[in-house]
Amino acid sequence: MKKLINSPVDVVEEMIEGYVMAHPDYISQLPTNKRSLVTKKANKDRKVGILIGGGSGHEPAFMGYVGAGMADGVAVGNIFASPSPDPILEVTKAIDKGAGVVYLYGNYAGDVMNFGMAAEMADLEEDIEVGMALVTDDVASALKAEKEKRRGIAGEFFVYKAAGAAADFGYGLNDVVRMAEKANENTRSMGVGLTPCSLPQTGEPSFEIGEDEMEIGLGHHGEPGIEKGKLESADRVAERLVRDILADIEINNGDDVAVLVNGLGSIPRMELYIVYRRVEQLLNELGITIYRSYVGDYITSLEMGGCSVTLMKLDDELKKAVHHPVDCPMFVQK
Amino acid sequence: MKKLINSPVDVVEEMIEGYVMAHPDYISQLPTNKRSLVTKKANKDRKVGILIGGGSGHEPAFMGYVGAGMADGVAVGNIFASPSPDPILEVTKAIDKGAGVVYLYGNYAGDVMNFGMAAEMADLEEDIEVGMALVTDDVASALKAEKEKRRGIAGEFFVYKAAGAAADFGYGLNDVVRMAEKANENTRSMGVGLTPCSLPQTGEPSFEIGEDEMEIGLGHHGEPGIEKGKLESADRVAERLVRDILADIEINNGDDVAVLVNGLGSIPRMELYIVYRRVEQLLNELGITIYRSYVGDYITSLEMGGCSVTLMKLDDELKKAVHHPVDCPMFVQK
Repeated sequence: MKKLINSPVDVVEEMIEGYVMAHPDYISQLPTNKRSLVTKKANKDRKVGILIGGGSGHEPAFMGYVGAGMADGVAVGNIFASPSPDPILEVTKAIDKGAGVVYLYGNYAGDVMNFGMAAEMADLEEDIEVGMALVTDDVASALKAEKEKRRGIAGEFFVYKAAGAAADFGYGLNDVVRMAEKANENTRSMGVGLTPCSLPQTGEPSFEIGEDEMEIGLGHHGEPGIEKGKLESADRVAERLVRDILADIEINNGDDVAVLVNGLGSIPRMELYIVYRRVEQLLNELGITIYRSYVGDYITSLEMGGCSVTLMKLDDELKKAVHHPVDCPMFVQK
Repeated sequence: MKKLINSPVDVVEEMIEGYVMAHPDYISQLPTNKRSLVTKKANKDRKVGILIGGGSGHEPAFMGYVGAGMADGVAVGNIFASPSPDPILEVTKAIDKGAGVVYLYGNYAGDVMNFGMAAEMADLEEDIEVGMALVTDDVASALKAEKEKRRGIAGEFFVYKAAGAAADFGYGLNDVVRMAEKANENTRSMGVGLTPCSLPQTGEPSFEIGEDEMEIGLGHHGEPGIEKGKLESADRVAERLVRDILADIEINNGDDVAVLVNGLGSIPRMELYIVYRRVEQLLNELGITIYRSYVGDYITSLEMGGCSVTLMKLDDELKKAVHHPVDCPMFVQK
């Protein structure tokens, strides 16, 4: 697969370099660690710092969500690989104002280990209190009875949004964690993969799939889905994704939701809106009110083809968080 | 090529339907024409209406740029095909406040004909004054001596931004046209194509290209470029694009520019930032100041692979326009 890069070993460093150069009013790189980026738009009313991170290749996630209303800092990993504890610790030290830092990350073994180690180091070496919230929104990745085994996918966007708003509201550490956990608890995603991506190092496709096939429940790094079958129409796919989500979480007539139809990298915006159309029709039929919609590339997997649907069930506090403005280099909401 | 759609004949209508459903606070569809969309965020200080449009498949262009600070309305064509005069005329009638409407569109035969016919109809049938500004930023599409033959590509974004701000400043028709023309006069783009897209109707690739090839100067609909060669590194490609732009327009030490590194559809954000990095390095070496940068998918060609670089040379009036806030469904700037 074609890549417009210099050398595969330099892609992450050069991306970060370009990112910091392009957005000098938003982002600075810590002198102590090149993989540690922090916002220049820090909110003075925030007590608690928000730290996000994960592997590269998911842009706008994760670095694109550092700014006003979302995260204060990000630790950047290699492609599809967790950042090591060092850059996480450096960001922690940079964004702590004395009231602690909340780590938000997807439920992947490497991230769980490295964020956990960084949290311990922050506590023992720096006396910084760290709260953590795992994102586990991917319905396809484990059975409902084992929700704690589920992976985090596009729902991470909603968890960042909720926790970022909570921090802006002036909440303390426990309440920011509570908001992140509530957002995760109320959020479900289901995806469909159409075409693979490839890692710059290998150039090999991340999974095998036939020219007329789709894979329901495919993970963001090519983890196997729950069903491979013939590619169906956008309406049938939307119905399948919404059905599986609503079988997993109780969202009823009269409830409010936020909706995210997320592109995985190479799917045109046109197709995302065609999928969105059917999602909204289905929710309308069920008497579920859409409080706000997001359609676009929010968490990608390089040039993977396909999309996911995410629903977050809203109470008044989450509505306020969804409504809250954001100003980040890759996402702005008035 | 795989498409997540229902039927090829319905893609544009269903996209519009999904778009209007997803952004009810921003957009309404005119009852008189389904291809006519207007903003709900109309600026009360604006005298002059801004109308944009063109073929579908370039999303976020064109419908994504209807909102506060950019266009008041859009006429939506079929995929890669100009809208007919009817929806243009309907939008014109809907957004005119008595001071006239400015049409902004790329220099393509179908658009020139249809926007021209709509302008005549607006004048003769509705007594609405229409100003027009063609976008001709694609350096590769004709020689400098024949700039009026050049196509409009990603530079359209800067022309919309400049004209939209001018309208918000309360400028009259002639001054909005003057700003759009100045923006176009000061803007140059050069692109590189890596992989084709395909039309839903045919499924056929929009152009032929080898697995290790790139095409410099490729058009947004697969129009032939100026040179097909072996795929080079991101740095070499960035140097080539910037060199060709600077050979075409005088931008000197001490000048200010806005920069857009635009993805054509399937190129990862990571690669766009790697390209941006080299663009900024080159401009820095020349003593050219980057006033503001935009990196992402601003004007696409379905799932085409590749990107373009656009520079707009800025005077104080254009700087003010670039700085001006925007709130549209697919682009927000604080």
